[in-house]
Amino acid sequence: MEDFVVLKNKYEKIKSENRKFDMSRGKPALAQLDTVNDILTAITKGEDCVSSGVDCRNYGGVDGIPQIKALFAEILQMEEKEIIISGNSSLNIMFDTVARAMMFGTVEGEKPWIHSGKISFLCPVPGYDRHFAISEAFGINMINVPYKSDGPDMDFIEKAVAEDESIKGMWCVPKYSNPTGITYSDDVVRRFATLKPKARDFRVFWDNAYVVHDLFDGGETLLNVFEEAKKYGNEDMFYIFVSTSKISFPGSGLAAFASSKKNIEHALSKIKIQTIGPDKINQLRHAKLYPDVKAVIAQMEKHAEIIRPKFNAVLSAFEKELSGIEGVWWSKPKGGYFISLNLPHGKAKKAVALAKDAGLVLTPAGASFPYGIDPDDTNIRIAPTYPSLPELEQALDLLCTVVKLVCNEAYKD
Amino acid sequence: MEDFVVLKNKYEKIKSENRKFDMSRGKPALAQLDTVNDILTAITKGEDCVSSGVDCRNYGGVDGIPQIKALFAEILQMEEKEIIISGNSSLNIMFDTVARAMMFGTVEGEKPWIHSGKISFLCPVPGYDRHFAISEAFGINMINVPYKSDGPDMDFIEKAVAEDESIKGMWCVPKYSNPTGITYSDDVVRRFATLKPKARDFRVFWDNAYVVHDLFDGGETLLNVFEEAKKYGNEDMFYIFVSTSKISFPGSGLAAFASSKKNIEHALSKIKIQTIGPDKINQLRHAKLYPDVKAVIAQMEKHAEIIRPKFNAVLSAFEKELSGIEGVWWSKPKGGYFISLNLPHGKAKKAVALAKDAGLVLTPAGASFPYGIDPDDTNIRIAPTYPSLPELEQALDLLCTVVKLVCNEAYKD
Repeated sequence: MEDFVVLKNKYEKIKSENRKFDMSRGKPALAQLDTVNDILTAITKGEDCVSSGVDCRNYGGVDGIPQIKALFAEILQMEEKEIIISGNSSLNIMFDTVARAMMFGTVEGEKPWIHSGKISFLCPVPGYDRHFAISEAFGINMINVPYKSDGPDMDFIEKAVAEDESIKGMWCVPKYSNPTGITYSDDVVRRFATLKPKARDFRVFWDNAYVVHDLFDGGETLLNVFEEAKKYGNEDMFYIFVSTSKISFPGSGLAAFASSKKNIEHALSKIKIQTIGPDKINQLRHAKLYPDVKAVIAQMEKHAEIIRPKFNAVLSAFEKELSGIEGVWWSKPKGGYFISLNLPHGKAKKAVALAKDAGLVLTPAGASFPYGIDPDDTNIRIAPTYPSLPELEQALDLLCTVVKLVCNEAYKD
Repeated sequence: MEDFVVLKNKYEKIKSENRKFDMSRGKPALAQLDTVNDILTAITKGEDCVSSGVDCRNYGGVDGIPQIKALFAEILQMEEKEIIISGNSSLNIMFDTVARAMMFGTVEGEKPWIHSGKISFLCPVPGYDRHFAISEAFGINMINVPYKSDGPDMDFIEKAVAEDESIKGMWCVPKYSNPTGITYSDDVVRRFATLKPKARDFRVFWDNAYVVHDLFDGGETLLNVFEEAKKYGNEDMFYIFVSTSKISFPGSGLAAFASSKKNIEHALSKIKIQTIGPDKINQLRHAKLYPDVKAVIAQMEKHAEIIRPKFNAVLSAFEKELSGIEGVWWSKPKGGYFISLNLPHGKAKKAVALAKDAGLVLTPAGASFPYGIDPDDTNIRIAPTYPSLPELEQALDLLCTVVKLVCNEAYKD
């Protein structure tokens, strides 16, 4: 273990340099955005806006244009009729999907959740803070589910949903999970597909945010949960979400909701009342730039070329600086936007606070847990995509110094 | 009165020609859309996407970019901080605003409407079918409010809201009301601003859909209800909605929600959880094309040049063909998208059905009333903007024939 005084001095020196780094959110870097700029000129004339006999400039098309449905169908390996296209934010669809279940029930004949007493959601932890914020806003009780190396603990989940009728939902990021980087194994996906929940209106919110977001070794393959579920007549149990936020522009993309015929019909019966429809011209722009999944994969490779060196920088720095420190370990994901760094118990908050004092903003410790509480105070979400590589390397130098500092036996609060 | 047999023969002849006309929705015509095409090339380069230090291609900006807030503030004569910018559909904001009140209450400390027992909305009739559809979806009891020549019956409204605590809301289209074409008089607006509702969480849904949609004689002026309400500390009572749907493209526009500081804060506290934000690049496109309200007015004059001859065609045809038929009268609006045609009691449904049989789709009779029921069966909403002028003239020939037919004393079902 390095000398505590040396570490302390190094930390104070960095702090005195008044640097500013932001590794708090999974934001694409400027260079990534530049690879998408062609979308700005994909549609330039009025006549380009007419597609399949529909003038996309005008009203209509509440569920999306056929080409984009086809694209998402190809990405998700589902059918076009199982898909509703929406505006810029898949989070918005998730919130609205919870809101619909709360107010109108999941399908015709089911009670609105708001009249069903206590509602609970299973939350694999660490997970995506914005999922948990939705549950919290609706007063939904959140139950932490531990992760195993190949996905959330299925023994725990099977037992919980079978016994507890208050469990109406579950949040999942099944591929390159935010922030663990884990992709659910085939076995885990099959066990999801065959769940036997006590609550008939239990729904899995399957947020496939990183479906094509591979970085290393050709990426990992996620089994098609919907296809599996269909084998057991369980397809109504899955709400599937996907977006172009980290494919095209986060600030001007498309999102989609995919589910069973019954769920889609019920959702559309309300969405038709809720909106005149999403931006169809932006759908056309995407259809022009990404006529098929091959074009999407080519786009993702451009992103990967920019992101890979950053992930490598993090992994190298951790390997070099943090290996061998007891209780310190991290994920080595093959895709996605995050690396999950784990410290010994009770150390994460301190590390994040020290980093902040010296100019490095990290995702707040605990943010990846329901109610913002990491019960062990061990997890830090590392989001390396936004800073430039030189900035990232400086930030990592600070981060590793901080981690070594708080893990040093001489460290006192 | 014309000879019944002559009318009948004319109707049958038109019917036999198998024509197809659609005057069912307030849709802009193709020629109008073409006047907006420059928006497609307003933003073509990555560097154009950076504005006020924000890269609009990336995440952030859940409440809208400053330029668009400023534009809507100018249009509504309100302050930028009183405005939230959203995506393509103002209806979506209205639905979500009702949903928020249902689930979270109107402001901190107020009970969610869903826990307040019976909820009623006042609905001036005839009105906008999609407003009523939202109320119906949420199980809100709708109370018809009659129109006077200068707006809804304020005696009725003042009494109703003062006495009935279940009345939590009211739908209004205060300028060129859909479909009456009425603009609320200054007196009506002032009486709105000074309402003393029994329910503290009563809200007026002030859908200013036609705020800049003047057609004749420079248009009509609507008093600023928000400014009036502020004089009486009543500003929390108003939810104001506006959109570019009939300014730029209905299929790719912007919508905004405007209200008091307290209401905006409460709305944003939920919207921040609901969405990562609307399409900011489309906001930039609008800002580029419409840097100020002058540019918007210039755009509206282009629309008006196309719409005016169509409104004139309707008014001339009605004047020529329907004048003097007892119980038949129509609105002569100075703007908006609709002309309201009124027939003698019990005649509207028959007329709409006969028109449909002969190939002219009109808005279904009753659609402009809560639950789709026009208690007198008198009102037909005429939407003349979408057909071309020659098509419109043929459609009007059919429509006037049908009206004369059902109003003829010899007509039997």
